[in-house]
Amino acid sequence: MSALEKLRGRGAELADLSCVEMLLSWDQLVMMPGEGAAGRAQQLASLARLTHERATARALGEWLEELDGAQLEDLDRDIVRLARRDWERARRVSEELAADLAQARAEGQESWQRARANDDFDAFVPALQRNVELARAYGECVAGEGESAYEALLGDYDFGLRTHELRRIFGALAEALPPLVERARVSSPRRTLEVPVAAQQAAVADTLRRLGVDEASWRVDVSAHPFTAWMGRRDTRLTTRYSDGDVESLLSSLHEYGHALYERQIDPVLERTNLGGGTSMSIHESQSKLWENHVARSPAFAEVLAAELGAGGFPIAPAELHSALVGVEPGPIRVSADPLTYPLHIVLRFELELALIGGELAVSELPAAWREGMRRLLGVEVPSDALGCLQDVHWGAGSFGYFPSYALGCLIAAQLWEAMEKEIGPREEDLRRGEVAPIQRWLAEHVHRHGRRLDTIELVEQASGRGLEIEPFLRYVTPLAER
Amino acid sequence: MSALEKLRGRGAELADLSCVEMLLSWDQLVMMPGEGAAGRAQQLASLARLTHERATARALGEWLEELDGAQLEDLDRDIVRLARRDWERARRVSEELAADLAQARAEGQESWQRARANDDFDAFVPALQRNVELARAYGECVAGEGESAYEALLGDYDFGLRTHELRRIFGALAEALPPLVERARVSSPRRTLEVPVAAQQAAVADTLRRLGVDEASWRVDVSAHPFTAWMGRRDTRLTTRYSDGDVESLLSSLHEYGHALYERQIDPVLERTNLGGGTSMSIHESQSKLWENHVARSPAFAEVLAAELGAGGFPIAPAELHSALVGVEPGPIRVSADPLTYPLHIVLRFELELALIGGELAVSELPAAWREGMRRLLGVEVPSDALGCLQDVHWGAGSFGYFPSYALGCLIAAQLWEAMEKEIGPREEDLRRGEVAPIQRWLAEHVHRHGRRLDTIELVEQASGRGLEIEPFLRYVTPLAER
Repeated sequence: MSALEKLRGRGAELADLSCVEMLLSWDQLVMMPGEGAAGRAQQLASLARLTHERATARALGEWLEELDGAQLEDLDRDIVRLARRDWERARRVSEELAADLAQARAEGQESWQRARANDDFDAFVPALQRNVELARAYGECVAGEGESAYEALLGDYDFGLRTHELRRIFGALAEALPPLVERARVSSPRRTLEVPVAAQQAAVADTLRRLGVDEASWRVDVSAHPFTAWMGRRDTRLTTRYSDGDVESLLSSLHEYGHALYERQIDPVLERTNLGGGTSMSIHESQSKLWENHVARSPAFAEVLAAELGAGGFPIAPAELHSALVGVEPGPIRVSADPLTYPLHIVLRFELELALIGGELAVSELPAAWREGMRRLLGVEVPSDALGCLQDVHWGAGSFGYFPSYALGCLIAAQLWEAMEKEIGPREEDLRRGEVAPIQRWLAEHVHRHGRRLDTIELVEQASGRGLEIEPFLRYVTPLAER
Repeated sequence: MSALEKLRGRGAELADLSCVEMLLSWDQLVMMPGEGAAGRAQQLASLARLTHERATARALGEWLEELDGAQLEDLDRDIVRLARRDWERARRVSEELAADLAQARAEGQESWQRARANDDFDAFVPALQRNVELARAYGECVAGEGESAYEALLGDYDFGLRTHELRRIFGALAEALPPLVERARVSSPRRTLEVPVAAQQAAVADTLRRLGVDEASWRVDVSAHPFTAWMGRRDTRLTTRYSDGDVESLLSSLHEYGHALYERQIDPVLERTNLGGGTSMSIHESQSKLWENHVARSPAFAEVLAAELGAGGFPIAPAELHSALVGVEPGPIRVSADPLTYPLHIVLRFELELALIGGELAVSELPAAWREGMRRLLGVEVPSDALGCLQDVHWGAGSFGYFPSYALGCLIAAQLWEAMEKEIGPREEDLRRGEVAPIQRWLAEHVHRHGRRLDTIELVEQASGRGLEIEPFLRYVTPLAER
């Protein structure tokens, strides 16, 4: 076997192991009996140790060396380029640290679930403390010349982004958004819509079916925090959650659908190579936000959603539903935030995780810092830790540097949506009829098919013809303040 | 780290990987969307390749050599003894063959599911053919001096058993059972009991709850073929299936419960060592058959089951339910066979798989051979392949040499039950009240806690004071013919 064949073989194996890890995590959050947690943590740790060993094997370095300067076709050149980048980053992490991280993440997730259920932050402190310390240690290992630990963590989710760029972008948002929020909370206030869970379930199932979600290659389940898992291109699993008090399920299921569609529309030729996944978290979030903000929250698609709720036994006028989906009101919860206040939730998390990893904020001080930040940025009083700093799984699961991608996703979604409408025309008429095939095709062509071949900024430039901007997003949210 | 520590570390890792593999298989049969099958096959193949590599690593051989003749405590001595035995068997199988086996098993399972659903044996031929060839190749690799390929396959499930022993035991059963069957089908005929699925579901859930099945560390699901999976001692998953036409669900859920309890009651000190699993398939089946035959089919426990069905909305007299659970009638399906005809189903499978692996029977001839055997042994006309040679998952999943353990399990269950009643007294009064704790304790002490420290025959001898006999089983089934 040639060095290239060996490299591709290892890539296929690592892709399989990544599917296996995803299944273990999906199962833990959706199916596993609670007391299985300790065993699952050990299984994940063993798997991580093994994966790390395979991803950092000296042999891999030798194959890469052999391939240095080799004449390769385009695809193979990208495979080798990314393999080299991943290998070099992974080599900096010891096997022991990789296993500790995996175990702490699994245990942290379990601890977070309990702490959140009991609104008991103190019970979560040791697990979170451990995750912070390990993330910092990890960041310090991986950091390149002149990079901080936090920036290195960021690089795992969005290769090529810089902290100072984030400060600039988030600074601009923090300036531009609050005046819009002030106007919108008066002109377009949030309304509570009490929709029976059964009607939501029917509407979610039927809407997803319209978008191509069938039982042959999808699952839709319920979990505490909605998420998506994919075990290959033909086994996609999204979750949502339901409550009588709102219609979050409609938004979150379309949000997760966006993640799912991205992975499913990657060029099949990249399957089981190191290029066969979404390129970054912010591009991933741009895909979920595109379906959440620009489809589910459009006046046109509200006609489809209203019809589905009606068929599920809850008749409602499209305009009324649309109002409920775009109404603005600063609140404590990120995932149910309106599109205008949403990025400010991220600004807070960015500030706090930067301080946690930097060591300027102690874990025990988090609840107070959270309350202060929510007051300052959104004017919101946090009613409890369960609805405050315990609301998200991320830190419990050891993910630091992930949150910024949520806000970047909003910006990129708006920028891609404008580029798409410029190319194939306004989507309004199609969306009114629930016709989304042209959107799916445009995204496949300009975003999805590339897999990891293009990094975030490069992909945005190729797809939209411009660098990352905040203006498209502001153009998207401004009408919300002027309704 | 000492050689012993390294060996135990590897043992823990292999135990974790085995849990991971079990989860992948459970998920495939219970949760996975159908089109995920190809990807799952690749994931299982990669995992098998990796597991095989870790289980057969040269380093392991070096640690074992270092430990040769070392002074060890009892537990470590057993750990090393089994590690040596497993290593030597596994070393004989190439990495490539191990991966081929795993992939063919996953694909074969999928093919079997479709073939069975469509009653289309021809569609299953290529996958089965591939499984037979690979099993034969595997058996030939692993076979020791003077062993046939089939005997080597048998050794994977029941170490230490011999084909000529099976011929002797099955020969004796084939002689003793048919006259009993003839009498029983008149004196104790099978009655159809139409029980609504909802009542069965309620009774299964409540009965399992009585036996200690709680949501904190168990799952109960539905699958085409009932089975049990365990991902560590605190994550146990059993499946059952329901149909309006019978009460099989009551028997199969107690059957699977027996498997589950065995794994859960292994001495915790053996967890994540190479001794921390059930010792053999026939001992495993003895545990499931003990709960199926000696608990669920007892007149005393029928009072509990009848009360549960009543609470579920289907009032029935205990005696009537008991009759339905023990009535004898030769039929085409193994898993719903009565306890008297059951072993004859195994005799047939034993004959056929012996011939398949030996090359005396072509895969394409299987349906005809099956029909002939059913006529000869049980006087049954097979109505379709779906209800004939496609009824069991085993061969599709690449398991040859597994079936005999089902009949041995019946024998051992009866022998253990007699030994238990001799020691702690008749169970009748307790079972009438649904009190099973003394049974659970006796099994934990005499069977479960040992894990793999004792092989089949040794365990039977220690627990019952005698070698494997067929008389206790005949004493158990004879009253069925004399009711």
